[in-house]
Amino acid sequence: MKPQILKGTRDFLPEQIFKREYIFNTIRSVFKTYGFLPIETPVMEHLNTLTGKYGEEGDKLLFKLLNNGDFLAKADAKALEEKNSSALIPSISKRGLRYDLTVPFARFVVMHQNDISFPFKRFQIQPVWRADRPQKGRYQEFYQCDVDVVGSTSLLYEAELLQIYDEVFKSLGIKVTIRVNNRKVLQGIAQDAGIADRWMDMTIAIDKLDKIGKDGVTDELSKKGFTAQSTEKIFKSINCESLEELNLDSEIGRLGIAELNEIHAFLGDHTFYNKVKFDPTLARGLGYYTGFIVEVLADDVKIGSIGGGGRYDDLTASFGMKDMSGVGISFGAERIYDVMEELDLFPTDNNAATKIILLSFDKESLMHANQLAINLRASNIATEVYPSAAKMKKQMKYANDRKIPFVIVIGSNEISDKKYGLKNMDTGETDHLTLDKIIQRLT
Amino acid sequence: MKPQILKGTRDFLPEQIFKREYIFNTIRSVFKTYGFLPIETPVMEHLNTLTGKYGEEGDKLLFKLLNNGDFLAKADAKALEEKNSSALIPSISKRGLRYDLTVPFARFVVMHQNDISFPFKRFQIQPVWRADRPQKGRYQEFYQCDVDVVGSTSLLYEAELLQIYDEVFKSLGIKVTIRVNNRKVLQGIAQDAGIADRWMDMTIAIDKLDKIGKDGVTDELSKKGFTAQSTEKIFKSINCESLEELNLDSEIGRLGIAELNEIHAFLGDHTFYNKVKFDPTLARGLGYYTGFIVEVLADDVKIGSIGGGGRYDDLTASFGMKDMSGVGISFGAERIYDVMEELDLFPTDNNAATKIILLSFDKESLMHANQLAINLRASNIATEVYPSAAKMKKQMKYANDRKIPFVIVIGSNEISDKKYGLKNMDTGETDHLTLDKIIQRLT
Repeated sequence: MKPQILKGTRDFLPEQIFKREYIFNTIRSVFKTYGFLPIETPVMEHLNTLTGKYGEEGDKLLFKLLNNGDFLAKADAKALEEKNSSALIPSISKRGLRYDLTVPFARFVVMHQNDISFPFKRFQIQPVWRADRPQKGRYQEFYQCDVDVVGSTSLLYEAELLQIYDEVFKSLGIKVTIRVNNRKVLQGIAQDAGIADRWMDMTIAIDKLDKIGKDGVTDELSKKGFTAQSTEKIFKSINCESLEELNLDSEIGRLGIAELNEIHAFLGDHTFYNKVKFDPTLARGLGYYTGFIVEVLADDVKIGSIGGGGRYDDLTASFGMKDMSGVGISFGAERIYDVMEELDLFPTDNNAATKIILLSFDKESLMHANQLAINLRASNIATEVYPSAAKMKKQMKYANDRKIPFVIVIGSNEISDKKYGLKNMDTGETDHLTLDKIIQRLT
Repeated sequence: MKPQILKGTRDFLPEQIFKREYIFNTIRSVFKTYGFLPIETPVMEHLNTLTGKYGEEGDKLLFKLLNNGDFLAKADAKALEEKNSSALIPSISKRGLRYDLTVPFARFVVMHQNDISFPFKRFQIQPVWRADRPQKGRYQEFYQCDVDVVGSTSLLYEAELLQIYDEVFKSLGIKVTIRVNNRKVLQGIAQDAGIADRWMDMTIAIDKLDKIGKDGVTDELSKKGFTAQSTEKIFKSINCESLEELNLDSEIGRLGIAELNEIHAFLGDHTFYNKVKFDPTLARGLGYYTGFIVEVLADDVKIGSIGGGGRYDDLTASFGMKDMSGVGISFGAERIYDVMEELDLFPTDNNAATKIILLSFDKESLMHANQLAINLRASNIATEVYPSAAKMKKQMKYANDRKIPFVIVIGSNEISDKKYGLKNMDTGETDHLTLDKIIQRLT
């Protein structure tokens, strides 16, 4: 049988794990400085927890688990007879794989509301599954990394999340631009242009400004039936490069501006390492956001957004818990990995990797090698022993392939003298040292 | 809709994550000292990679994913008509959830044989899924933690794995007994007793010695048709408390003893922290082990084995790669957690948790609090700001519930004096200090 891996899934080799952990650990350590707490939810959820939460298209992309045992015994007879696959699903599948981290988080908050303190600041780094068609850079199994606060409407958290974006990307060495807007500002721009009830249509059009330019957006607005006067007013607003320039004849618009100003006030004289800029064209899709929205782009790699988020009014309403406002951002871990690779930003020294390997000429020196290894490891030096007295060339090849920086070859002289030739594989130099000196050198 | 979690699955709250990570990090850091490397494989595997690897019972316990789209269109018509659930599966499901870490590891080794160096020392800490009936302490989604070396027959690795067990449990503070045996010794005992071809039957019986005692085992052996003379010889062998006493008239038996002696020789004068003892009654089920076997029991909690493993001759044969001998052990992470809870062994100080929270009386002091927080975080002090100038009682309740050890309440005096009352929540004492002094105190 030829071994195969499913399309859209990946094995991770040690080198890749090291790099992925580098990203996750960097993100985690910043989260923790702000008092965010880790949680984890199961991979499998009740299918009815997931169904209907991601739109019709999302429901199709959910991975569903077949009930165990004689599932046909309880299958919907009518759906079976009509060969109606989607109608059959509820009777043969009660479990699905997590599609994102937001819906499980909402379920978690409602179920554990008496075990947690509000405002609840949590982060979650776990894989999710989507039955998308696999293609380059798009997987069926991939990691999401979310950080949210629920149970507070304070704009302090918007300020904290901007600082977190800035710090994480600074730590990773990725220069980014953090674009900020507010859904209420978008609504205000529409109201100001006399098309308050069609702000979604407007938003869809101006969201494309980067791709189709001003003429394209003007065309689209005109096709949607907006007057030239409305369009002109819209462009006047979205051409504003700062919050101060924006002057909207709209109450909700002014509220959005006031919110952005308050975030600014929380930041005081804090200087960001990366560019943070107000961008009235930022829309962040049509999702559930109701206030602040944010998106992060890498300055030096064209790859789309590597982070995004915003404030939502009602995370948990679908689970029967009202008025649970929250704000959160996510990190596009898979894309961040690709950016780091492209810009060669991963550290080259893996501190966790093996530091030294002991090679031997015969059984006796192999036994001695293990005694030496016990001592080196007791000083927390990651040590390997080549497991047999194979040809020295073969042993050296292993040391080279594994990129182990130090090698000691043990023979009868070394055993009697208690001095060992410590070879630095980078420089090629060998120093003859006692065990104590070797430990000193390597720690 | 009432939120629910699937039976046999769990959410992990921050406190639990902290404890789980404590266990995993302890294990990982020992693995790394020995040069073991982390890998990860996908949660989803081709169903035919998994099917047939765990016996008939295992196949039933595999979680299978329904194909997406119109799966009935390609469903096996005959199986559908006959309502034969198990015959239908291959035509409507091509994916399954990982059942253990061993089969995916074997697939990994074969697929990546040109990307890795042999002997390949890997560890893997990931969840697996089994459709067992959920009950106390048994989950459908749970973590496994495996460490293996493949591509070498050297008994050096048996010695390393014994040291790893000893070190991990020492670091966790759990006193254990590590029982060691060798499948060849079991075969030798059978041969010595004149029942070479029935060593499996013998092994099944003596494996129960702990539970049913000598009389029970004698009964079972007699029922299976072993003569009194054979039974006597078997008991003479398994009553040996040391390797030296065991004197087998069997070539394979002597080979098993020689292997155990060689492991001993590799260990030299190394002293274990925990008890490591030869136990000729240890059998480790009927699985694929062919040489060394090992099992770990906690001395102070009755919970069954919290670790086990052994040497196998052919990890990858079912994927067409021959002669890939290996040896590995696993850690029963879920049970280890329960043992640590019962013996109260988890550290109480979570270094990653929030160190200080800033409370405020009004909007102005809240803004000031965030400036202070920026400075504290810059010194890597995990800091929270209560997000609004709510009633002080409410703010204090949050600080208490979250068990945050230090609190500063900020008002107009603090802002003008630039001195802040740092309250130690343990002692109740408050010291009035400048920001610099506070940073000194908390780092």
